[in-house]
Parts: sequence; C-alpha cells; structure tokens
Amino acid sequence: MHFSCPQKNLLNSISIVQKSVSSKTTLTILKGIYLEAKMGQLKLVGTDLEIGIENIIEADVRKEGSIVIDARLFSEIIRKLPDSNVEISIDENSQILIKCEHTEINILSQSASEFPELPVVEEEQTYLIPQEIFRNMIRQTVFATSQDESRPILTGVLVEIEESILNMVALDGYRLALRRGSINAVDNYKVVIPAKTLNEISRIMNMDEDEPIKVSLTENHGLFTIGNTKLISRLLEGEFINYNQILPKEYKSRVKINTKNLLNSIERASLLGREGKSNLVKFTIKDDKMIITSNSELGKVYEEIPIQLEGNDLEIAFNSKYFIEALKVIEDEEIFITLTTGVSPGIIRPVDNDNYVYLVLPVRLH
Amino acid sequence: MHFSCPQKNLLNSISIVQKSVSSKTTLTILKGIYLEAKMGQLKLVGTDLEIGIENIIEADVRKEGSIVIDARLFSEIIRKLPDSNVEISIDENSQILIKCEHTEINILSQSASEFPELPVVEEEQTYLIPQEIFRNMIRQTVFATSQDESRPILTGVLVEIEESILNMVALDGYRLALRRGSINAVDNYKVVIPAKTLNEISRIMNMDEDEPIKVSLTENHGLFTIGNTKLISRLLEGEFINYNQILPKEYKSRVKINTKNLLNSIERASLLGREGKSNLVKFTIKDDKMIITSNSELGKVYEEIPIQLEGNDLEIAFNSKYFIEALKVIEDEEIFITLTTGVSPGIIRPVDNDNYVYLVLPVRLH
Repeated sequence: MHFSCPQKNLLNSISIVQKSVSSKTTLTILKGIYLEAKMGQLKLVGTDLEIGIENIIEADVRKEGSIVIDARLFSEIIRKLPDSNVEISIDENSQILIKCEHTEINILSQSASEFPELPVVEEEQTYLIPQEIFRNMIRQTVFATSQDESRPILTGVLVEIEESILNMVALDGYRLALRRGSINAVDNYKVVIPAKTLNEISRIMNMDEDEPIKVSLTENHGLFTIGNTKLISRLLEGEFINYNQILPKEYKSRVKINTKNLLNSIERASLLGREGKSNLVKFTIKDDKMIITSNSELGKVYEEIPIQLEGNDLEIAFNSKYFIEALKVIEDEEIFITLTTGVSPGIIRPVDNDNYVYLVLPVRLH
Repeated sequence: MHFSCPQKNLLNSISIVQKSVSSKTTLTILKGIYLEAKMGQLKLVGTDLEIGIENIIEADVRKEGSIVIDARLFSEIIRKLPDSNVEISIDENSQILIKCEHTEINILSQSASEFPELPVVEEEQTYLIPQEIFRNMIRQTVFATSQDESRPILTGVLVEIEESILNMVALDGYRLALRRGSINAVDNYKVVIPAKTLNEISRIMNMDEDEPIKVSLTENHGLFTIGNTKLISRLLEGEFINYNQILPKEYKSRVKINTKNLLNSIERASLLGREGKSNLVKFTIKDDKMIITSNSELGKVYEEIPIQLEGNDLEIAFNSKYFIEALKVIEDEEIFITLTTGVSPGIIRPVDNDNYVYLVLPVRLH
C-alpha cells in the first residue's frame, strides 16, 4: 500500500470513524482503523461490532493495499503533522511509514485480513430524511430512552413509518417522548434503533450540507449514509411497547405556560433538591398562576409563574429531572401541560405545534 | 443584614472569591463565603487558610450585617437567577432569604463570627507591576516549580527585587526557569510565593484593566491588590537555592532554531515515547541541521530541522516534557540552545530578548 493525501482531509476522516472504535475492547484489532487504498480513494473503517463507520476520501494511490493502524496513535500522529501532504506506505516488514515534510514516523501495523467485515445492508427499504429534521427528531427523543440494560428494547428509539408519517418514540418507564415527522414513503416499517447509534449519527451529520441522510433498513441492521460516510448499526430485537395505549386521551386541567420561564423555575427549585433521591418539585396550580416549591434539609425554594388555566385547580409533584430534560429540547415559546389528577401522568405539548408529545409520571405526595 | 444588588455583579464577585474556597476541607465554615454588608458596599471573602480572596461590590444596604453562606450552593443559586436585582436578608432564625423577581429561596447560614479573619498585611514594601507583564512572568516560570511537597520551598517561585530589577525563578531539580523584568523600586527584597497563589493571581487579573497590580510583602505574607479584589497568601519559608551557581557561564555549541518548528517536532517525537517513563527524545546536532529521534516499542520518529550551528557537533537526549513546557511559554520566533557536552545542562534563550533563561538537564544515553 502506498498513497498520499492532504493532512487535513485525513485527520477529518479519522475523526469521523474513530468514534466507533472502542478503546475498552480487549480485541486489539478493534482498537485499530482499517485503511484501504484503491482506485484513487482511501477508505477508513472503524467498528466496535455494534456500530461500524466507513468514510471515503480522495487520495493519490500509488500502490493499492490495506492495513490496520492503532486508532488513537494514528489520530494523534496525523493531528500533530503540519498542514501539508501526508504520504503513507508499508515496508516489507509490514511497518507503516508516515512521511510529511521533514518528518518520518514508523509504527507497527496489524493485518487487514483480521479486521471484521461490516455487515452488508441491502438498500431496499430506503428513505431520505433532511439532516436538520432527523437531528432534531433524535434530540427530542433519545434522552428519554432507558439506561437500564435489563430491558434492552427500551435502550433504543422506536422508528415507525406509516405511509407518509414518521414517528420516533422513546420511553423508560417514567416518561415517554413522541416526535412526529413526515416522510416520503408508501410502505409501513417499524424498527428500534439503539440510542448510541442515533447519538453517533447526530454527531456525524454535517448541518452545512443540504443533502438528506439516506436510511436503509433490514430486519437486523440499519445503514445511514451521509455524503461519503456510511454508518452501519445492528437494530434492537423485540417488540416495542404499544405506546398509544399509554397516552391519555382526556384531561381535567390544561395549563398554558412559557417554556423558558418554567424551565428556569424548575432548575432553581431543583438546586436544593439534588441531594435527595427523587429531585421532587411540587406544582400548585390555581387560577392564573403556578407555584413551584421544593424543600430539602438545605433550604426551600418558592417560584411563581403566570399561567392560563382551563379546568380544575391541582397539586402535583414531579421528579424535576424528567421535566427539565424535556423542556430543554422544546424550542416552542409556549407549552400546554395537561393533567387529570395528582397521581396520573402529565402531558406536555407545544402550543403552536402538533409534532411533539411528552408524557411524565408524577411522584406521589405523602 | 439586608441588601440588594444586580445579579450579574454578585455572580462575578462570587466567582472571584470562590476559587479560594476549598471543597475538600473538613471544616464546614471554610466551605462558605463570608458576606458583609456595610456602608453601601458588599464584601465577599473566601479562604482555605493558605490563600484568602476578598472582593467588594456596590450594594444598596438597608441593614448592615454579616453572614456565611455555603459557596457552592450560593454560586449555583445566584447563577440560575434572572439578570435582575437580587435582594438578600436574614430572618430571626438566621435563615437567609434570597429574593429575585418571582423567586424566593431560603437557605441555612453559618455565623460570621466563626469565619477566620484574613491576616493583616502592612502595606510598607509595596510595588506596582503592570498586569500583563506580571501575568507573563508567572506563565514563564510557574510551570517549572516542583510538584514534590518533600521540598516545600521548590513548590514556589522566588521573587527577587534588586533595585530596579525584578527576577522570578522556579526550579524542580530537573530544570530551571528564570524570567527577568524591571520594577520601580529602590530597595532589595526576596520572597518565595507558592505556585498556587501565582496561578490564582493570574486567573483574577483582568487584562482589560490598565491599572497595575499592587504587591505588598511582609516576611510571611503577600497582599496582591487588583481593582476591588485583594488576595492574601502566606509565603514559603526557607532559603531558596542559589540559582546563579547553577547557570553555566560557557558553552561549546550554540544552536539557533525556530521555536515553533522545534516544539512541533518534539511533540511528534514524544507521541511514541509517552508510554515509557522518561519521554526520551534524542537530538543529533551536526552542521546545518538538528535531527530529533525517538524510539519505543510502538515505533520510531525521525525529524529534521534546519539550524545555524556555532561550535561543535553534539548528541544529547532530553525528557521531551521539559522541553515542550518551556517552548510553549516562549513567544519569540527564534531561540538559542547552548550546550557543552552530552551530559551537561542545555540552556534555552530567546534570540532577540534577554529576559528569559531556561536550563534543562539532559538524560544520559546508554
């Protein structure tokens, strides 16, 4: 193998694929980046066997070939090279030689044949989604996935395509986030994508690009193509919870409130509650205001926010974390909070927008 | 106590004094910030008994008094309040009440009488130093202080005033950094200031201000005044090493080299050496170039840099860390490295500037 390419391009490519390389793995080969020089192109691949990322850049290929280089060392070396052309070759002992201006670096390599091949994903069920919309949909749902590996299906986000509707749903037993979108599709499809995969996709998406992300799904794998980058991930197996059953259809109280004011007030109220377990904040809804209070051995907080109330007065308490996380991903200025009793779930929706629903369970007051 | 002031000013003041508050202390009172409202001013004080910081802001004082509030909690609360006026008072149970717009927060306080008084430093030996110069002098020396507490005197920087000359010197047994400056003084004075104190002063100095820092020294304490902020620190006791004896007067080889090129080359060479203990990089100086090499089980690096050599060819090896740290604080484009043999110290000086000398011991090659 023998090729050269600009340092900047190589560094960018390394930083894209490196995120799928696990530093914790005990398999040395998985700590490496696979390099393949072929027909004017350099392909870089990294994988942790769950997620694989592949990126292609142009290169001046003088001799085709492939090799595996330790990802961390390779990244550090290329980062420190000057903004110039980098030439990489392999000698007869399979040592890698990196040349750039007046620098020559020799490092050990591993055989490319030991590197696991990424699964081949047939591009049959293929959808195009604008990057900005997909990134926003991920942001508004992925935080509500479960961190608890004992129910693996809940560590992913349900992606549900029904004709021209695209729904993404995450839930963890305490709250549920549903983001609705539209898609150009004629068929129905349902998969559960690991939260980690969605976070990686979000990171890779380059918002400067107008090009949509291409999503191809099979039963077990998803292929996500963004420009010259492909991310391949396994999907989660199993049946997702029928979330429609969980969403209440009716309510007794509807509160209209400013999103930012509510977020700030709950954040202050939660400052003193943090030491406790449930981060309890209490809402007292009455007439034209909502009073938010919290209490701990450190002190107490009292907050008053103007609201428009339709329906009954109510007292209800929540874990502040579940409210804060949702309010942070809602960009709309005002939300409705709909409630039934002090022990039944609360629902948050943007006032001027029908695309987001967030359900949160209350904490029972003693 | 009862006062009010703008949230922004209070937050800024907290962030200045908070750095001297230790979160690790077992004395609860030292985890607090002392507040004193008096004659239109609010004074905040924090201390870890080694360093004390005091900051004064204007406030609308309705009732004079003083109190101690947990620093972390106070800082988090004030940070989360809106950009508005904050009103703080104490009730009959010594609870603190913080009011801001529609927020009311109650937290516990501690008695101001338990808070340690900062030492009084007589302002007799007083010097004025421009902030930018002092900050630069600190940056060029403080990194060379010893981390080893077994010789406490070396954990500080010697500050030596001799008529109109101000020298700052740090050394740790492997290298020595000497920064020369000038000062408007007629007397001689010598103190050793803890590295931690100098780092804090650097952080507090506000480069927007033209006002010089005022340094007042007594035998055991230093008082550093910057605008409305006073930092009081104990000084290190004991005799500093006679550093003049250490600096060699002669050399056999003098290398003129570009600072940035040398830094980049050593950084690359040290990438492969990091796993080892001494981060060894070897310099081979011959004719018009310096070759830098490093070797480890991970691979090897070869770097070539053009130089102007006066005197003998030479081979010498160094711990790369000691070179990198010095090169990072030298802003001059070119330096001289003067050397005698492969086992005697190297000296770095800027070519166009007489104010900095850095000595580093070589590593013996096997």
